[in-house]
Amino acid sequence: MFDCGKIAIIGGGSWATAIAKIVIGKTDHIGWYIRRDDSIENFRRMGHNPNYLTSVRFNVDNIFFSSDLNKIVEAYDTLVFVIPSPYLKNHLKKLKTRLRDKFIITAIKGLVADDNLACSEFFHNVYDVPISSLACIGGPSHAEEVALERLSYLTVGCSDQDKAQAFADVIASEYIKTKTSSDVLGIEYSSVLKNVYAIAAGICSGLKYGDNFQAVLMANAVQEMSRFLSAIYPLERNVYDSVYLGDLLVTGYSNFSRNRTFGTMIGKGYSVKSAQIEMEMIAEGFFGTKCMKEKNRHMHVNMPILDAVYNILYERISPQIEIKLLTDSFR
Amino acid sequence: MFDCGKIAIIGGGSWATAIAKIVIGKTDHIGWYIRRDDSIENFRRMGHNPNYLTSVRFNVDNIFFSSDLNKIVEAYDTLVFVIPSPYLKNHLKKLKTRLRDKFIITAIKGLVADDNLACSEFFHNVYDVPISSLACIGGPSHAEEVALERLSYLTVGCSDQDKAQAFADVIASEYIKTKTSSDVLGIEYSSVLKNVYAIAAGICSGLKYGDNFQAVLMANAVQEMSRFLSAIYPLERNVYDSVYLGDLLVTGYSNFSRNRTFGTMIGKGYSVKSAQIEMEMIAEGFFGTKCMKEKNRHMHVNMPILDAVYNILYERISPQIEIKLLTDSFR
Repeated sequence: MFDCGKIAIIGGGSWATAIAKIVIGKTDHIGWYIRRDDSIENFRRMGHNPNYLTSVRFNVDNIFFSSDLNKIVEAYDTLVFVIPSPYLKNHLKKLKTRLRDKFIITAIKGLVADDNLACSEFFHNVYDVPISSLACIGGPSHAEEVALERLSYLTVGCSDQDKAQAFADVIASEYIKTKTSSDVLGIEYSSVLKNVYAIAAGICSGLKYGDNFQAVLMANAVQEMSRFLSAIYPLERNVYDSVYLGDLLVTGYSNFSRNRTFGTMIGKGYSVKSAQIEMEMIAEGFFGTKCMKEKNRHMHVNMPILDAVYNILYERISPQIEIKLLTDSFR
Repeated sequence: MFDCGKIAIIGGGSWATAIAKIVIGKTDHIGWYIRRDDSIENFRRMGHNPNYLTSVRFNVDNIFFSSDLNKIVEAYDTLVFVIPSPYLKNHLKKLKTRLRDKFIITAIKGLVADDNLACSEFFHNVYDVPISSLACIGGPSHAEEVALERLSYLTVGCSDQDKAQAFADVIASEYIKTKTSSDVLGIEYSSVLKNVYAIAAGICSGLKYGDNFQAVLMANAVQEMSRFLSAIYPLERNVYDSVYLGDLLVTGYSNFSRNRTFGTMIGKGYSVKSAQIEMEMIAEGFFGTKCMKEKNRHMHVNMPILDAVYNILYERISPQIEIKLLTDSFR
């Protein structure tokens, strides 16, 4: 049976914090890379992440914090990357230690900028990490609910089922149920797409479309997702599974989703710029939309929802017009 | 091309009123059976249904109202039944006119009491209506949103596609998009099951399970629905379609769903009796749960959500215990 060894979290946001809480609940120790030294200092002093999920208390004596990625990578065996995809490359630029002997787990809901690669593809192509040492975490999981220990289901994807099971065992608990999958790429792409669809849901809500239409949108979204996944990575998969459909629903139906909120503002008439300023944070689906559109240029999958969101966000076409056209394509 | 002829609505509730609004928007006249004479009188005087969707105005000169079912059945060609399923048989008891020459459309989200038959099966078995003259309406459709003319998608199911298309054309408009299907039974059973699942969603919400779990519940519900439909009526169907998945989502995620509200009260600890008294109305899924459980006794489909809701509502097993067991069965 594979042993995950010493585990480190790479990233300081809310999902990183939730995963840190889950992992440290089972292991006695974690490493934790956080970019800013002042955040680490405040974390140590306050006993919780100063910026995210502040109600989650940590025993900081059991955490080795560092703002030096090399130190963390050198000292740990399993690295859980939880960095917003647009920043991933920047963080990795500082890396001088090789990654290919590590067990790399990505919990990143976006493609790597410019390359338009899923994170596992990126680590494989650029850092020579073997496919069998690349895993991902998926499933419907608001970090805030994990913080509250509300029952959540997570899926660990890895082509090596032994490794998937080993990490699934690490994170399983009273409030986290786990399963494993071999569909790493499918999980990664579906978690990018669901953010695009959450933006679409927000746009329609902002335009005053109702719940009846929202349900039709989601039903069409899961079909669009299914078409894309079959094209990019043909595999016998059940898109009803919670890691695909469930994750789409929790994001698309949540009023707490940043992506949905961003879409709602666009639907209400905010420009992309002012919606971003107003939100004071990045909706990952904004970048995801561009990446997926680029990706699909060569694949030609029929993706009317993706196209509509792209046209609204990047081609400045009026949401009214785009969504009206979209409604005609639905069944 | 089939002609629907003169169309009458049978039933006086909110969905009946919404369908009446849709139909009369396209035809010049409808017949309308409403049980109580005083309701009809108030309707005529006020120009709207006195009890449901009161904001929807009707030109009552274009409606032939009657509390005599025979008068309506005699004078009309297409009959749209929109009566809560537990009362259907009672209404039909008064019937002396034969139904088998009529085009019967059911918009009833429940099975016929005692017989545990879908409404189309019931009209066929008991009233000799030929299969080709039996249709149903499905799709995600809060009556309140139809009243507000918010875009909704309805599906007309009929084994005779000509007839399905004819009625679909009658109800299509600016705010109603339609499609046709030949899966009458599948649509009918899925609309019963989604009420059961909405009760389950409410129970879990009342027990303080969060959005992450809710998404897992819905993903498992659509799979359970799919298993049942394949067993009772094997057919090449796409359960992602809005008429199945969409209808499930709009009910399961809506705070306005009576079934979900009923479930929430049960989850919070109300007894079935007091939840019903408090709500002052019937949650159709309460009866639907019993009917479906009976139906599945002979079919043995794996339906853990249905079983859990049944045990909670009819066997007085504690919601905490049942839902805890259910969470172990989920994937």
